[in-house]
Amino acid sequence: MIKPIQDLVDSLSRLPTIGRKSAWRLALYLIERPQEELDVLSSSIVSLKSSIRLCSNCFNYSTSPLCEICASTSRDRGLICVVEKPMDAFAFEKTGTYRGLYHILGGVLSPLNGVTADKLRIAQLKNRLKQTDVHELILGLGSSAEAETTCIYLARLFGHESFKVTRLARGVPAGIDLEYLDQITLDNALHERTDISYR
Amino acid sequence: MIKPIQDLVDSLSRLPTIGRKSAWRLALYLIERPQEELDVLSSSIVSLKSSIRLCSNCFNYSTSPLCEICASTSRDRGLICVVEKPMDAFAFEKTGTYRGLYHILGGVLSPLNGVTADKLRIAQLKNRLKQTDVHELILGLGSSAEAETTCIYLARLFGHESFKVTRLARGVPAGIDLEYLDQITLDNALHERTDISYR
Repeated sequence: MIKPIQDLVDSLSRLPTIGRKSAWRLALYLIERPQEELDVLSSSIVSLKSSIRLCSNCFNYSTSPLCEICASTSRDRGLICVVEKPMDAFAFEKTGTYRGLYHILGGVLSPLNGVTADKLRIAQLKNRLKQTDVHELILGLGSSAEAETTCIYLARLFGHESFKVTRLARGVPAGIDLEYLDQITLDNALHERTDISYR
Repeated sequence: MIKPIQDLVDSLSRLPTIGRKSAWRLALYLIERPQEELDVLSSSIVSLKSSIRLCSNCFNYSTSPLCEICASTSRDRGLICVVEKPMDAFAFEKTGTYRGLYHILGGVLSPLNGVTADKLRIAQLKNRLKQTDVHELILGLGSSAEAETTCIYLARLFGHESFKVTRLARGVPAGIDLEYLDQITLDNALHERTDISYR
């Protein structure tokens, strides 16, 4: 095939979620689109990194020194949710109910892969907790072994401070048949069952 | 989410094969890549259309007035395979065994969708067949109702000329269990069975 198409297919198929076939389909689709559309796509790609920096407070992606959430006056500044990566904070934002701030750790502990505590933004979190009056620290981490380990590590580190340290509830996810639920989840849901009696 | 990421996600999720979730994953992946990689991707997109033209002989994508295949001296110039779109010609090229030229129709007949014979490159094909000494015209079209109709239309148009008009064999595709094959395919394979006896 001719070089300009081949080059694009090569670039596209290096991306995650795009296989060789999809890359071809995309390239041949793009040839037929108006030039303005290609210009828009191209410029959002090329300017992506230069237009984005990390918020100096929570380390989330931002266009200004302080991100929109940290700069907002309507959020509870005493509530911080620790998450692994920007996408996780975005997932919390989509619920529309969380009113606190975030702290992006930049990963979870995984000593075997070289991710020790000093590779994460734990020192920065310590600093933040010293400088601001926090009433609750939510550990909004996942349920992988590494995330659980990180959770325990942070709970030990901050568990004796004046603020509350909480972690996400473990239990039955929405819209699932119990029949197909794994043992660990069901066991967690059973152990952490909630009292709903009228007493 | 912040605008530069949102813009890219919007552009990406308008593309075929890329859903909203994949678009997010791609955008967040691209943020972490080196700027040079984004530059390469961006410039292959922006220059795609301007670097590509249609071959004046077969109407396939090309970087020069005559495409590589039409310009080649090692191909059989008397053998033309009519295909719907450039991707189909590319599929034939991948087999590595076809040594003739192509003619890109630019679609198949679909009068209900406004695709009548004058919308396809049939006049150009007629012209080509007049000007060159062709010994065989292969109708390399698919098996949709529209493709079959186009095949019949072209067979009627050129069936009485001095050259042979053929169509692709219909039968059992590679690597499939007959049990799961549809009735029409099996019926075609049975009717067009090949004699392999030693006589």
